[in-house]
Amino acid sequence: MKQTLPETEIHEGDYVLLYMSPRKTYLARAEKGKSFHTHKGYVEFDSLIGKECGSAVKSSLGFEFIALKPQLRDFIMKSARQTQITYPKDVALIVMFSGIGPGSRVVEAGTGTGALTAALAYYVKPEGKVYSYEIREEFIATAEKNLKRAGLKDFVELKNKDIVAGIDERDVDAVVLDLAPPWLVVPHAYSALKPSGAIVSFSPTIDQVVKTVEALRENGFVDVESVECLMRGMQVERGKTRPQTLMTAHTGYITFGRKITKL
Amino acid sequence: MKQTLPETEIHEGDYVLLYMSPRKTYLARAEKGKSFHTHKGYVEFDSLIGKECGSAVKSSLGFEFIALKPQLRDFIMKSARQTQITYPKDVALIVMFSGIGPGSRVVEAGTGTGALTAALAYYVKPEGKVYSYEIREEFIATAEKNLKRAGLKDFVELKNKDIVAGIDERDVDAVVLDLAPPWLVVPHAYSALKPSGAIVSFSPTIDQVVKTVEALRENGFVDVESVECLMRGMQVERGKTRPQTLMTAHTGYITFGRKITKL
Amino acid sequence: MKQTLPETEIHEGDYVLLYMSPRKTYLARAEKGKSFHTHKGYVEFDSLIGKECGSAVKSSLGFEFIALKPQLRDFIMKSARQTQITYPKDVALIVMFSGIGPGSRVVEAGTGTGALTAALAYYVKPEGKVYSYEIREEFIATAEKNLKRAGLKDFVELKNKDIVAGIDERDVDAVVLDLAPPWLVVPHAYSALKPSGAIVSFSPTIDQVVKTVEALRENGFVDVESVECLMRGMQVERGKTRPQTLMTAHTGYITFGRKITKL
Amino acid sequence: MKQTLPETEIHEGDYVLLYMSPRKTYLARAEKGKSFHTHKGYVEFDSLIGKECGSAVKSSLGFEFIALKPQLRDFIMKSARQTQITYPKDVALIVMFSGIGPGSRVVEAGTGTGALTAALAYYVKPEGKVYSYEIREEFIATAEKNLKRAGLKDFVELKNKDIVAGIDERDVDAVVLDLAPPWLVVPHAYSALKPSGAIVSFSPTIDQVVKTVEALRENGFVDVESVECLMRGMQVERGKTRPQTLMTAHTGYITFGRKITKL
Repeated sequence: MKQTLPETEIHEGDYVLLYMSPRKTYLARAEKGKSFHTHKGYVEFDSLIGKECGSAVKSSLGFEFIALKPQLRDFIMKSARQTQITYPKDVALIVMFSGIGPGSRVVEAGTGTGALTAALAYYVKPEGKVYSYEIREEFIATAEKNLKRAGLKDFVELKNKDIVAGIDERDVDAVVLDLAPPWLVVPHAYSALKPSGAIVSFSPTIDQVVKTVEALRENGFVDVESVECLMRGMQVERGKTRPQTLMTAHTGYITFGRKITKL
Repeated sequence: MKQTLPETEIHEGDYVLLYMSPRKTYLARAEKGKSFHTHKGYVEFDSLIGKECGSAVKSSLGFEFIALKPQLRDFIMKSARQTQITYPKDVALIVMFSGIGPGSRVVEAGTGTGALTAALAYYVKPEGKVYSYEIREEFIATAEKNLKRAGLKDFVELKNKDIVAGIDERDVDAVVLDLAPPWLVVPHAYSALKPSGAIVSFSPTIDQVVKTVEALRENGFVDVESVECLMRGMQVERGKTRPQTLMTAHTGYITFGRKITKL
Repeated sequence: MKQTLPETEIHEGDYVLLYMSPRKTYLARAEKGKSFHTHKGYVEFDSLIGKECGSAVKSSLGFEFIALKPQLRDFIMKSARQTQITYPKDVALIVMFSGIGPGSRVVEAGTGTGALTAALAYYVKPEGKVYSYEIREEFIATAEKNLKRAGLKDFVELKNKDIVAGIDERDVDAVVLDLAPPWLVVPHAYSALKPSGAIVSFSPTIDQVVKTVEALRENGFVDVESVECLMRGMQVERGKTRPQTLMTAHTGYITFGRKITKL
Repeated sequence: MKQTLPETEIHEGDYVLLYMSPRKTYLARAEKGKSFHTHKGYVEFDSLIGKECGSAVKSSLGFEFIALKPQLRDFIMKSARQTQITYPKDVALIVMFSGIGPGSRVVEAGTGTGALTAALAYYVKPEGKVYSYEIREEFIATAEKNLKRAGLKDFVELKNKDIVAGIDERDVDAVVLDLAPPWLVVPHAYSALKPSGAIVSFSPTIDQVVKTVEALRENGFVDVESVECLMRGMQVERGKTRPQTLMTAHTGYITFGRKITKL
């Protein structure tokens, strides 16, 4: 992301993560003469521009913020809706189980707000490409904005099409599904994938998992597995260390498989 | 990994994953005139070479194997020791929380058998680099073999040095620690990292976590958090779906932080 | 609890659980001429008295409530503070691992609001006894009120004493500890217990667990184990079944052991 | 269990738990002139009889065993099959959510080997009763043996009948189901229960849960909830404390509800 993300110094137009605490962070674009308002006072961007990433700055009310360079997971968290606050754990597993890496060509659906799209783009760049299908036109603009903000738009082709009707691409390395009826896309995914290519699907309900696993088994996929991932934070303090009190109990199941060559 | 991993067709010298079931897979190098022996009979590589990835082949005892193109996680699983069978979930989170991606320059310690090293190399390639420290000389050769097998050796510099004595590199994007006393490396990591750079540490015990978190808080890191990740598989069968009976209860805690600029 | 809990019919003075939904329940005492106010209108007790348990009644605003006979876990939930909403799972395991049952003589500390005390009393009655130590005088009255409400006061002796200074009783079947420094009580528990008797301790932090386990191992206990229990609800709806979105991630660790006879 | 369980001293005919480590325990009946054989040598009962519970004894090969008084959970573990090694956690929750306690009258099905039956009997004694239905005649004898061993036979009526055909009892406090099609028993449970009485069902698969929850909602039950309970042990050692490596990932879901009075 050399093109757009701030390097060591904060330039005008760079995105910064204003950090107050792990639960209080703000993603903002540094614009000359402007300021960012929080409930702890406002921060003037002029006081940030030209400083090193990681520097402290005081708000108008005297509270300290650290101006961090945003990571991929910050862009994910800030583009995702509130209810999906542990999404990075699932994104990480989706990427791992799909075998996606630099140079991969990936089909994705649906785009939504582009959080998963951004992650896929981040890992396939600079030579790979993400073909992202979204049927709801209103999401395309939001996703495009989020991808541009993360400097990842160049690695994504946003397609306002219904993936249930078919996939245009061929010989892709992976198909990643985050939509309500993933099982309907399985035969198309088979056609689109390279031999031995990977499919990964993310679904909140068990019924979706059962239908998707059945579709995979019946349509030329092996090594079909479904998992869920629970992430729990620790409250670390010498002499008082313990797991956190509340956690996200469920986001969704991740189902994956690999294409075989039919005779 | 265009350079070394098999593409659509299986060539001599390519690695293949002989798949029988999710729990029975074998990573093997296709060599002319040779065969691979399993408890279900042997597979002759001559019957595989020239075929498409994903093709089925019969063993001498008539059992069917699918010859899949290995993914990153297969190389990880086959280079890791038996007790670390869920390692890919942690690797995925380590990569996500460190912000590592194509082009990143990363310091890692200790190398061990190179499982995590391979994953880091996979995601930083083709322009990035992993500097991997390992004090035990005997591990270097094993790691090198595993990295070569995965076609990732070019993106790694293996260093037979004690990272507790210091880090040679400067301005790296991330420092990834998987060694017994990570807290001793924290001040060196601070010196090696770019402003706003990321540190991630993986440790099995709570005592290691406490010491590491304290060292991070005292040495110029913010956004310090520790998490653990539990992954549970589902047994999916229509009318009988349920979580699996046994699972890995613990691999380790992942602790991460971001460098601030000290005044 | 034949003495005080409502049987089939609701009598004046009986406690009832006004049930609206699993998350909206109210514990109230049916008093003639009085009513119970909720944000969904008030319920007149005169309309309940004489009816069968499990009957529906309408509030002044027309909302339906079911008047259930309260169970032990309702008394626990309503006497516990808000932050301990999953306490019944731990109470259940404490009772199971202590071997407590009808007729058992049990020492407990600290009493607190009497939630665990009530559970112990419920299972030791009618012939057993709970000796409950609490150093903070202000809690004794609250606990007494909660125990009376549940009809369990007769099976408990509340003692406004510091258990760290010693235990008065001898030859008890079990010692149950829910206080900050359980390790300090371990030698006293040894003296108070019958041969082969059980000790169980509940603690939120890992540091407490370590100190307690060490004290048990050094003071004549075997079969020493520590566990934690995660309870997750399911959202059950045909075609949309999934685990709940949020859960309590941690209440505390349960540590248990059994007394050996020292030579 | 005053009748049959050893009190302070070990008598002939008493059951003892020969304890070597948390994972190596043996339940045996102390018989004069006989001995108990383990892979660490045999223990002569004559050396135990007359000693205090909790005493140490040496095997013929010089290994030390502690002769503990068995608890309910020992009888459960030793009557259950190997695959159900965490059953006590579920038994504890079943008892808690059913509101079962001393004096309760409880209907149970199926009896199986009597592990859950023993637990229910343990908590309802001395005045309560468990009516346990089992269709497979061969299990009745095993259950009877296990119940006698635990000194709990007097509190159980074993019935070799199919509960799906109906329940003989009326006005019971709770119905506890651990059989393949619990939903078929729900209408009978409604008839058998007191107003406001409790039903609890234990099932391994999600499909069973969905059918049972639907049956409860349609047949006069409220406060219907399904939960699962994960229990994880800790390896406690100063400076090296961590969760255990492997755990039981799933035993079953616990579904519960309370009977309303239909108009």
